[in-house]
Amino acid sequence: MTLDTLDTPAALIDRSRMLHNIARMQQRMDALGVSFRPHVKTAKCIEVAEAQREAGARGITVSTLKEAEQFFAAGFTDILYAVGIAPSKLPRALALHRAGCDLKLLVDNPDAARAIAACGREHGERFEVWIEVDTDGHRSGIRPEDDTLLEIAHLLHDHGMHIGGVMTHAGSSYELNTFAALVTLAEQERAGCVRAAQHLRDANLPCPGVSVGSTPTALCAQHLEGVTEVRAGVYVFFDLVMHNVGVCETSEIALSVLTTVIGHQTEKGWTIVDAGWMAMSRDRGTAKQDHDYGYGLVCALDGSPLDGYVMIGANQEHGIVALAQPAGEGESKGGVRGVAANDIATRLPIGMKLRIVPNHACATGAQFPEYHALSNDGAITVWSRFHGW
Amino acid sequence: MTLDTLDTPAALIDRSRMLHNIARMQQRMDALGVSFRPHVKTAKCIEVAEAQREAGARGITVSTLKEAEQFFAAGFTDILYAVGIAPSKLPRALALHRAGCDLKLLVDNPDAARAIAACGREHGERFEVWIEVDTDGHRSGIRPEDDTLLEIAHLLHDHGMHIGGVMTHAGSSYELNTFAALVTLAEQERAGCVRAAQHLRDANLPCPGVSVGSTPTALCAQHLEGVTEVRAGVYVFFDLVMHNVGVCETSEIALSVLTTVIGHQTEKGWTIVDAGWMAMSRDRGTAKQDHDYGYGLVCALDGSPLDGYVMIGANQEHGIVALAQPAGEGESKGGVRGVAANDIATRLPIGMKLRIVPNHACATGAQFPEYHALSNDGAITVWSRFHGW
Repeated sequence: MTLDTLDTPAALIDRSRMLHNIARMQQRMDALGVSFRPHVKTAKCIEVAEAQREAGARGITVSTLKEAEQFFAAGFTDILYAVGIAPSKLPRALALHRAGCDLKLLVDNPDAARAIAACGREHGERFEVWIEVDTDGHRSGIRPEDDTLLEIAHLLHDHGMHIGGVMTHAGSSYELNTFAALVTLAEQERAGCVRAAQHLRDANLPCPGVSVGSTPTALCAQHLEGVTEVRAGVYVFFDLVMHNVGVCETSEIALSVLTTVIGHQTEKGWTIVDAGWMAMSRDRGTAKQDHDYGYGLVCALDGSPLDGYVMIGANQEHGIVALAQPAGEGESKGGVRGVAANDIATRLPIGMKLRIVPNHACATGAQFPEYHALSNDGAITVWSRFHGW
Repeated sequence: MTLDTLDTPAALIDRSRMLHNIARMQQRMDALGVSFRPHVKTAKCIEVAEAQREAGARGITVSTLKEAEQFFAAGFTDILYAVGIAPSKLPRALALHRAGCDLKLLVDNPDAARAIAACGREHGERFEVWIEVDTDGHRSGIRPEDDTLLEIAHLLHDHGMHIGGVMTHAGSSYELNTFAALVTLAEQERAGCVRAAQHLRDANLPCPGVSVGSTPTALCAQHLEGVTEVRAGVYVFFDLVMHNVGVCETSEIALSVLTTVIGHQTEKGWTIVDAGWMAMSRDRGTAKQDHDYGYGLVCALDGSPLDGYVMIGANQEHGIVALAQPAGEGESKGGVRGVAANDIATRLPIGMKLRIVPNHACATGAQFPEYHALSNDGAITVWSRFHGW
């Protein structure tokens, strides 16, 4: 199996880029003196998580119980389920716990805490529970100063559950694009989570763990005093959104979609490829950023960008590749590019294979049942990926 | 298994709505005197296609060779692969053809036609090939008057391939929102495809089939003179994009995502649910339409809309449900809605189940390995769905 013979569309992982990204993050965490717990929701792939573990990661973070079940079956035992648990999911969590999985649950409200405590007591199990803290207002969690923190901790502690600590995720980091702003948000994330821990400790409640993280804040934090572990996910592949945020080069992006040219509309300068939104996902995360890459950046088979070509549109199994309109350039200035456009069927002929770098690696990966992991020597290995819940 | 005990998120099909949609389309096609070939890319589900066949559909349309293989294995033999074939996919098409599948291929350029003819002659197989016609400029195909049509037909015909006919898809119908505009586009689609057929026949080339269709144009065409068959896909479920286009009521949408409330941010009026973009997909198709539903319309467990609630934001496994800002209503007028927002944790408590109607059924369905088909008596059946290529 080689890139030339692989059926398209296919999700390619550049192994050396991936290992470089894993090493970069782990070295940073080691230097900051914290434990690192990668979020495996990005790849949902055993081989990727094994590479993260080999590099020094301790434990994993998951976004669904299916991930917890699959990774536990593959030998990962220390698992943080980092989405507030629905009470109806407790039987599945209980089954994992009883099977020996060191599963950590998350709550941000008293009702869920009550349900966990009731389930634990009924079945004689001591769940480890973390409390979600809101440090940037972007989603879930309790503000560090909110006494609901104490209410939840008491509900758990007084009923014999184990409080693992507090955790936060500054997901609004994806909306930033300067190093200075990322440094500030990373400090806000750290300080808020440490304050929440202190809030519990001041009330004589246990709070051993302080967990923070997102890929941009993890890479920009200047110090992590009071933090015990960091979580990040998308760094393992990176993507165009992360490039626009400013934390990677496009040459570090390890995921791309292999596609084949199937048609042209030469007057428009369009090349039609067999990767549409079913392959790329509908994620248009770069649309609101400084550089809009459409549905993805077009690269040659060797991974080098084809200057200026992006996927400007996508139907289910059709992608439209064309030269992006340069920022600030009106239609009247399109002459030179118009010449190139007429050449399109020669430059990108029927049957030619291209690689499209995605906006959002988590969303694009999810469209595929498997990855094709590509080594520097051209060897390709199939790595399967979980689907569903 | 009932809606109350089903794990979330889950993709629900309301069977009676689906059967109503299937009957509506089939009756319309019968009245217009054309054959109907549903596009099974929407559901990728054997049970759904069987219901379409039982209602009178003849043959199916697919968007990938995997669909062709899976449906052929399930007893469907008359299959149009409605994406221009990449030459590298011909071995898979050949294998299907040799196994007895009446597979129809599609081309819109001489290079692909040459590759099909070469493969057919080399292996002694007579492929049936359709030529794609562009009637609205939205994607692939050859203009009806373009002599490339004749070049392709000669390449196929002179090398012993079977020309099945011409086909077109007026996908720009998704951008319209008035009945009059849809009637006009349906006529443009019909007339353009019939002209392309005439172009071939005038050159003494065979063109038995004339295939047109998209859900909106199929439902609005006033007559289909010269057309032999119609294709449509999303009508089987409908969705919010189709509702905005004007071809269905929200009460006809057969697909929804079952989700559970897992948190609140009461000051903001937010309810957090366990269906994020991984469940809904990243499709924001209603964003550019008259009524933006965010990531979906929020309904109660019985399928009735919760007035004014939409999913305003989505992370991978978190959805944010809130009252939509009414069109034209500024923040200063938000008082009454503000009161409701403070009530949110009471109105939509932790553990409550909701159903979210999606923007785009094809994209949302693709996120799930299976559907849960719901009968009027509350019985639930699992229908599996294909994933990948």
